[in-house]
Amino acid sequence: MGYGKTSAVVERLKPHFGDRLTIAEAVRRHHGEDLSYLPTMLPEAVAFAESTEDVQRVVRACAEERVPVIPFGVGSSMEGQILATLGGISLDLSRMNRVIAVHDSDFDAVVQPGVTRKALNEHLRHSGLSFPVDPGADASIGGMASTRASGTNAVRYGTMRENVLALEVVLPSGEIIRTGSRARKSSTGYDLTKLFVGAEGTLGVLTEITVRLHPVPAAISSAVCPFDTMQGAVDTCIATIQSGVLIARIEFLDDIAIEASNNYSKMSLDVAPTLFLEFHGTEAGIREQAETVEAIARENGGRTFQWAVKQEDRDRLWRARHDSNPATRAMRPGAAMFVTDACVPISALAENILAARQDADASFLKFKINGHVGDGNFHVSYLVMPGAENEIAEAKRLAERVVLRALDSGGTASGEHGVGLGKLKYLRREHGGGIDVMQSLKAALDPHQIMNPGKLGMVAAAG
Amino acid sequence: MGYGKTSAVVERLKPHFGDRLTIAEAVRRHHGEDLSYLPTMLPEAVAFAESTEDVQRVVRACAEERVPVIPFGVGSSMEGQILATLGGISLDLSRMNRVIAVHDSDFDAVVQPGVTRKALNEHLRHSGLSFPVDPGADASIGGMASTRASGTNAVRYGTMRENVLALEVVLPSGEIIRTGSRARKSSTGYDLTKLFVGAEGTLGVLTEITVRLHPVPAAISSAVCPFDTMQGAVDTCIATIQSGVLIARIEFLDDIAIEASNNYSKMSLDVAPTLFLEFHGTEAGIREQAETVEAIARENGGRTFQWAVKQEDRDRLWRARHDSNPATRAMRPGAAMFVTDACVPISALAENILAARQDADASFLKFKINGHVGDGNFHVSYLVMPGAENEIAEAKRLAERVVLRALDSGGTASGEHGVGLGKLKYLRREHGGGIDVMQSLKAALDPHQIMNPGKLGMVAAAG
Repeated sequence: MGYGKTSAVVERLKPHFGDRLTIAEAVRRHHGEDLSYLPTMLPEAVAFAESTEDVQRVVRACAEERVPVIPFGVGSSMEGQILATLGGISLDLSRMNRVIAVHDSDFDAVVQPGVTRKALNEHLRHSGLSFPVDPGADASIGGMASTRASGTNAVRYGTMRENVLALEVVLPSGEIIRTGSRARKSSTGYDLTKLFVGAEGTLGVLTEITVRLHPVPAAISSAVCPFDTMQGAVDTCIATIQSGVLIARIEFLDDIAIEASNNYSKMSLDVAPTLFLEFHGTEAGIREQAETVEAIARENGGRTFQWAVKQEDRDRLWRARHDSNPATRAMRPGAAMFVTDACVPISALAENILAARQDADASFLKFKINGHVGDGNFHVSYLVMPGAENEIAEAKRLAERVVLRALDSGGTASGEHGVGLGKLKYLRREHGGGIDVMQSLKAALDPHQIMNPGKLGMVAAAG
Repeated sequence: MGYGKTSAVVERLKPHFGDRLTIAEAVRRHHGEDLSYLPTMLPEAVAFAESTEDVQRVVRACAEERVPVIPFGVGSSMEGQILATLGGISLDLSRMNRVIAVHDSDFDAVVQPGVTRKALNEHLRHSGLSFPVDPGADASIGGMASTRASGTNAVRYGTMRENVLALEVVLPSGEIIRTGSRARKSSTGYDLTKLFVGAEGTLGVLTEITVRLHPVPAAISSAVCPFDTMQGAVDTCIATIQSGVLIARIEFLDDIAIEASNNYSKMSLDVAPTLFLEFHGTEAGIREQAETVEAIARENGGRTFQWAVKQEDRDRLWRARHDSNPATRAMRPGAAMFVTDACVPISALAENILAARQDADASFLKFKINGHVGDGNFHVSYLVMPGAENEIAEAKRLAERVVLRALDSGGTASGEHGVGLGKLKYLRREHGGGIDVMQSLKAALDPHQIMNPGKLGMVAAAG
């Protein structure tokens, strides 16, 4: 695909954008790296949009000049989604950070793409409602929608797939459309909302997002339980879901992660595969749920089942989970985490985690494993020294085995981090002829391939 | 769009299909009418598929000869989705009725498209799991997926949008693809599963569907409560959801529907706007839920709140709801129901229902109103005598007002019945430029417009 000159776009946009359009290297650098292990790839310019019209202006100019546009939220992507593989303009949406409306009775909010999940929840503080999707990082809602993000409580509240109701989108042509509505369900036409959710900015720019809100539970309790075996922990998870308990969070840390947390946070937890649980409901309801799960855990080699209701007690109980990433990094100061993201049918979860663990045990890299086990999603985080080619190669080798096993188990290469650059090579293996369909859709909506090129839809056939 | 001769396809397919391909009028008639008020439109031939390969054979022949293909399940569509507007082949999938696999630990089942929801639940009888989506009719899972169906318990378990995990699809080219996976979540690529769900057979033929299953609740209770006003009933619904009670069903019948049921089933219910509720959970949990909702109802003009736990008591309590459609038809023997399907943000539900009621009260048609109020979805069912043009015209006039008000309220023309032929004219008003996107997608996947022509994607720009 032949691209035009970014300088021509900059010249056209400068009169309108002024200082909000820059080619300063420091700004470009900030927009050319994310939370992945991937090398920095700078855009040629950065435009800061403050309105849908600003976005439209940038996209139109880029469409006419055939210059790449890369939507950018806060840069917390995990797979290089915001890297400027072919230069062009990074379109920064962080200043579009207004909560446009909160509809209390309808349990929805309309936000601009630069609103972060924490900012939205801060805004909702006194409403009795919350936006529960929690990927860890304080990501932008636009970015979360674009990667179909999820996190620790998707098992109860769903991912961005379930929680985005409607969108305003600037198409690659510059045209503005609205998809979906604030009605909770609809059967009128192709589900365009779901097409743009997870498209990683390759089909257009999200400029307004209507998300579902959920009532803040009347009561919350947390629990922690170490297990004799990892299989026991996973079996507890399966039996919990089958019991009808609507668990809010069910997180797994392996013994390595627990030991790292003990060292990092000066705790003395049992060094064992451990489940961290959270229950939402009424006071009587959460007590009943915890008792049910405690009984299930006991049957599956669970040791002491500790639980807590008060906020500070819950925080203490979950500290090892909350601190797990810094604790892991502290295992090897200076190292970065290379993180896998496989997601499998839950019946295949134990064998997939065990095999990943065996592989990693046999390697020279340090690592830990954690999982959103209620979804069948787990992360192996290998510690690699930035620039150490042999370490990155080893992490890639191990991660590839994780991905291929997940696919062989009927799962997916990525549960929540998306494809970006890191997982393009597995798309054909995962989706077969579906990739050709994805490419047709991309070609239909973005014939000049200006939207986030080098990602989904364009080179998707690479693998 | 110029189409070829169906006879040429019949000739090509006859050697393989034998008796399973017919041009007999009785069979064509059965495949040319559904549950809508729309006139019969016969296909020119009917092919009965028994395998994905059969489907592929039919689609390939139709693609080569440029002949329309209309996927057919059990013919329970509500908006003319299966009518052969341009002749061609009706592709009957009802013999593809095998439950291919049930994965107990993963809470999913893989089924052929002709499996009906009741047949699937019968198959699951001893598994402790169920497939809860319940549109009333014993529809085929393929048809339900294609119209993005839902029904009485979508408020708790979601619609087909949330409950289809993966698909096998024969594309308009005859190519077979698989979308999604059995993993509970994924962020690898465009969400093709959600694109085919709700596409009404216009993008391909669903030949295998992986659906989510849910644990059968340990306890179920039902309740019925008449209200002084409709507003009170709807406000009870909003407050119930906001309270965090995960109500399984919350159904509304207006006083006309109640009176019809009293007459039909020899009951003596209060003739008043009434909520029918169902709670799923543990024994203690459903008691607590019912108490919470009873208190909310009392604050909103609810009269006696009756509830029941035993199956036969629950059935008795809900009889008016279960019998509502035959009871309504008995108001005017020989009449058919012309049914609206608007869905609005719940805050706008009371005003939308009230306005629909006022309009209908001022008309000469008999009618009743019911609603899946937890979703903001309601149906006005006008009784029209088949062939009575003036009655159908009046029902259309009233229904149009229902649709336009719903769109003005930020809602949708159809919550669960789909677009079919009856609602094509409202698509542009609801989706604006999104319709052009839908047409691009249709053109990309079905360039010769052979898949269910005259429906979504092709003449979608009509309105």
